Amino acid sequence: MTEATTAVRRGRGGGGAARRAERSAVRIETAKYIERNIPNFEILTPEALEVIETNAETVLEEIGVNFVENPGALERWRQAGADVQGERVRIPRGLARKLCETAPSSFTQYARNPEKSVEIGGRNLVLAPVYGPPFVRDALGGRRYATIEDFRKFVKLGYMSKWLHHSGGTVCEPTDVPVNKRHLDMLMAHMTLSDKPFMGAVTEPSRAQDAVEMCEILFGKDFVAENTVMTSLININSPLTFDATMMGALEVYAASNQACIISPFIVGGAMAPVTVAGTLTQVLAEVLAGVAYSQLVRPGAPVIAGAFVTSIDMNSGAPTFGTPEASQITFGMGQLVRRLGLPYRSAGSFNGSKLPDAQAAYETANTLNTGLYSGVNFMLHACGWLEGGLVASFEKFVMDADQLGALHQMAKGIDMSENGLAMDALREVGPGGHYLGCAHTQANFKTAFWRSSLLDYKPYETWYENGAPDTQSLANSAVDRILSQYQQPALDPDIERALTDYVDAKKASMPDAFT
Amino acid sequence: MTEATTAVRRGRGGGGAARRAERSAVRIETAKYIERNIPNFEILTPEALEVIETNAETVLEEIGVNFVENPGALERWRQAGADVQGERVRIPRGLARKLCETAPSSFTQYARNPEKSVEIGGRNLVLAPVYGPPFVRDALGGRRYATIEDFRKFVKLGYMSKWLHHSGGTVCEPTDVPVNKRHLDMLMAHMTLSDKPFMGAVTEPSRAQDAVEMCEILFGKDFVAENTVMTSLININSPLTFDATMMGALEVYAASNQACIISPFIVGGAMAPVTVAGTLTQVLAEVLAGVAYSQLVRPGAPVIAGAFVTSIDMNSGAPTFGTPEASQITFGMGQLVRRLGLPYRSAGSFNGSKLPDAQAAYETANTLNTGLYSGVNFMLHACGWLEGGLVASFEKFVMDADQLGALHQMAKGIDMSENGLAMDALREVGPGGHYLGCAHTQANFKTAFWRSSLLDYKPYETWYENGAPDTQSLANSAVDRILSQYQQPALDPDIERALTDYVDAKKASMPDAFT
Repeated sequence: MTEATTAVRRGRGGGGAARRAERSAVRIETAKYIERNIPNFEILTPEALEVIETNAETVLEEIGVNFVENPGALERWRQAGADVQGERVRIPRGLARKLCETAPSSFTQYARNPEKSVEIGGRNLVLAPVYGPPFVRDALGGRRYATIEDFRKFVKLGYMSKWLHHSGGTVCEPTDVPVNKRHLDMLMAHMTLSDKPFMGAVTEPSRAQDAVEMCEILFGKDFVAENTVMTSLININSPLTFDATMMGALEVYAASNQACIISPFIVGGAMAPVTVAGTLTQVLAEVLAGVAYSQLVRPGAPVIAGAFVTSIDMNSGAPTFGTPEASQITFGMGQLVRRLGLPYRSAGSFNGSKLPDAQAAYETANTLNTGLYSGVNFMLHACGWLEGGLVASFEKFVMDADQLGALHQMAKGIDMSENGLAMDALREVGPGGHYLGCAHTQANFKTAFWRSSLLDYKPYETWYENGAPDTQSLANSAVDRILSQYQQPALDPDIERALTDYVDAKKASMPDAFT
Repeated sequence: MTEATTAVRRGRGGGGAARRAERSAVRIETAKYIERNIPNFEILTPEALEVIETNAETVLEEIGVNFVENPGALERWRQAGADVQGERVRIPRGLARKLCETAPSSFTQYARNPEKSVEIGGRNLVLAPVYGPPFVRDALGGRRYATIEDFRKFVKLGYMSKWLHHSGGTVCEPTDVPVNKRHLDMLMAHMTLSDKPFMGAVTEPSRAQDAVEMCEILFGKDFVAENTVMTSLININSPLTFDATMMGALEVYAASNQACIISPFIVGGAMAPVTVAGTLTQVLAEVLAGVAYSQLVRPGAPVIAGAFVTSIDMNSGAPTFGTPEASQITFGMGQLVRRLGLPYRSAGSFNGSKLPDAQAAYETANTLNTGLYSGVNFMLHACGWLEGGLVASFEKFVMDADQLGALHQMAKGIDMSENGLAMDALREVGPGGHYLGCAHTQANFKTAFWRSSLLDYKPYETWYENGAPDTQSLANSAVDRILSQYQQPALDPDIERALTDYVDAKKASMPDAFT
């Protein structure tokens, strides 16, 4: 547990002594990434895993994958021994898996605050916020296009969250900033408003290059040459297609030894077969090809094998979330990725609800639980996701982030120490007694049970007198409280100035583009 | 899947042709109890299980349990070889476990509709509704004391639910009926308004006897003598205490070969140690003693070993739900009960929220998922629970019941048949193609994905034009729709008359009592 007690900035008028006293007591804590002490849930038998692995190799060998508008990639595959016809790459059985062997099973992503660096892989779980929504929602303002100011608020909320280990990437799309300059403002926000690890730009190879150069300013050129300081999201265009933009960004990052998540984004039944085993086969084939390609660019480049799969409502065609099929795929893919010896990315605060209501919470909890038990190592979208990913919700961000605390506690497993076994307490209390006053309870009660810092545990009458708030209402107050308590982490002014200069110069070098 | 297409009763005035057409299409389906085709999640190592088992035997031998105001029970224990001092029963190491061996690992509870009989044990999961709340809540009426009319509505909702296999017991406390006559009206409702299996009365041994006699009318005396037609809830008074009322009811049921759930109701830190391993030790000791006692009453009597454990908010003393500690106990107890070879009861739609909001859904989903993966065989409280069990919520009943459908689908596991593997679809579509139109999708899309019948999957604009309903609002409409579609299952008029005569005579035989 890394902790930093900070003297919180006073002010903005008003307040009063009680409020100042409360504020000055604020501790900004970040929990260490989760180190699981519980088993993974293994839904598939070893025999079933072998069938899927064999079929995935058949897909790569017989059907192949397309690398679109990317002659360099085709040449790399040809040299590696693949059968390349036009843009179709057919990969001989076993070759992709063999190429994946040079990818590390685990790697460190450094943060500018070294206490917040994360180890991605093994039995660890690193939690990062929602990525990509063009809209935001809050209880008062409703649903609207996201702005850079919204973006900065989310980065601040992420920085203040005890249970988020990672600042993420495009926590929402700052639609008021030109498309070709957004990445600069987003990176600036992650680098200056937080000290947690973050993600780079992937929308153009040149923007990925900008991200590397900004990291060289933040961390130092030598440090970036030697270490991984970004993990970026490279989507596969399912089925079985790798486009030039995403591969271009991958090439930049892999060449710089920066990490990529290589992950299909699949709506089952549309971009993959309607069956779970068929989808697993395709996802494994895609991940094998993508990870293998990263190793052709630079053997040893750090990568995370991902699976983002939803099911579909066959009545409306809408993607659906928190469903049993999505859970089965997440569990099965976890097993397949572990057999590949790679870090695994999946799950998140997924839901299809328009509001941070019961639907949102059922679907999210189904997915978060699945993520924990499936052995996910990097969970993008771990908080704040709403409406199928179209919306980043301020209230849901803090609601989900609170639930992430429960994952930390669950992952610790069951304490089998003498204190955990509590035989002294059992002997002291005996039949018909009461544990609240016993010595063992007194010694342990502060840390015995996980406690939500958001949800309502009050007696009914107190809750009613407080206005009978629902969860969204409690979360709305929490968002305001957290943002009012936010204090920017210190950064060397020379570095901050150099970053500002870099961004200003880049922006001045090109006209605004909004598409 | 048992199905019954029924011509639905028309009416109550109004309606119109469209509504009648919709109604006449209603199918009342009940899914078969869940037969798991997925593994259980095993959180404890075999070594850890042995430590807890050893410690539980130590608790029984050294500390013992109290059987209060029950000389007959003390005499049974004395004859079985226990050390009885006053009301304290110390059970020699191994004796309780040995006595448990005569309890069946699985048993059939018969319903009056034989298609709805359930098999409790093995890899099965039987779902029953909330039990015990003195209050009810709905969106329009708010929170209020429950009445027998509320009770009947819940029985109807349970009968109409596809995913509930069991009608339950005290779905809410009918507080407008005298305490000493409630069981008669409640049993009458389960027997006449539903044809699913149900639970008996436990608040007095004489009321348990009434339940047996009413079952003899409903099923026939010979049938009841030979078969189990009720499963009733016997709570242990933790820590380590068995009271005369509950044991009296257990004695009646066990003697009649009727099933009992023997289960502590524990608020961790108050009625058990604050640690998970300590609580597991106590719960195992309690269950061993209780199940062993049922076998002293009648060897072979069907029982379910239960664990109902919440954690506590050490700030307010309130019980908390859906927490990691509760999940750890549910997982661990599942392993311990399987090693005893008994059916397992745990989990449910637990939450501490005052409203059917996001808090309710997070906590409920955490618990439902835990229940599925922990190998629970009988899940009481599977839907409708609100506010720590003080409230039965109409909206939450249908919200949770909808989620229970997802458990059915998840439990099926992953289809590894040729159709499931979908290699033909992968070959047909290929890189860059689309699966929606392919032959495999066309052949499978109707059953490919679980689909909520309640939650919102609509496009944003449609949802907004429909009034932007939250989940509670959708559920409120669903409750009204389901109750308007309800049709009573047929029952032999002679039997119904005999039941009515029995209840009338019983009621006339005693004055009203409200405590």
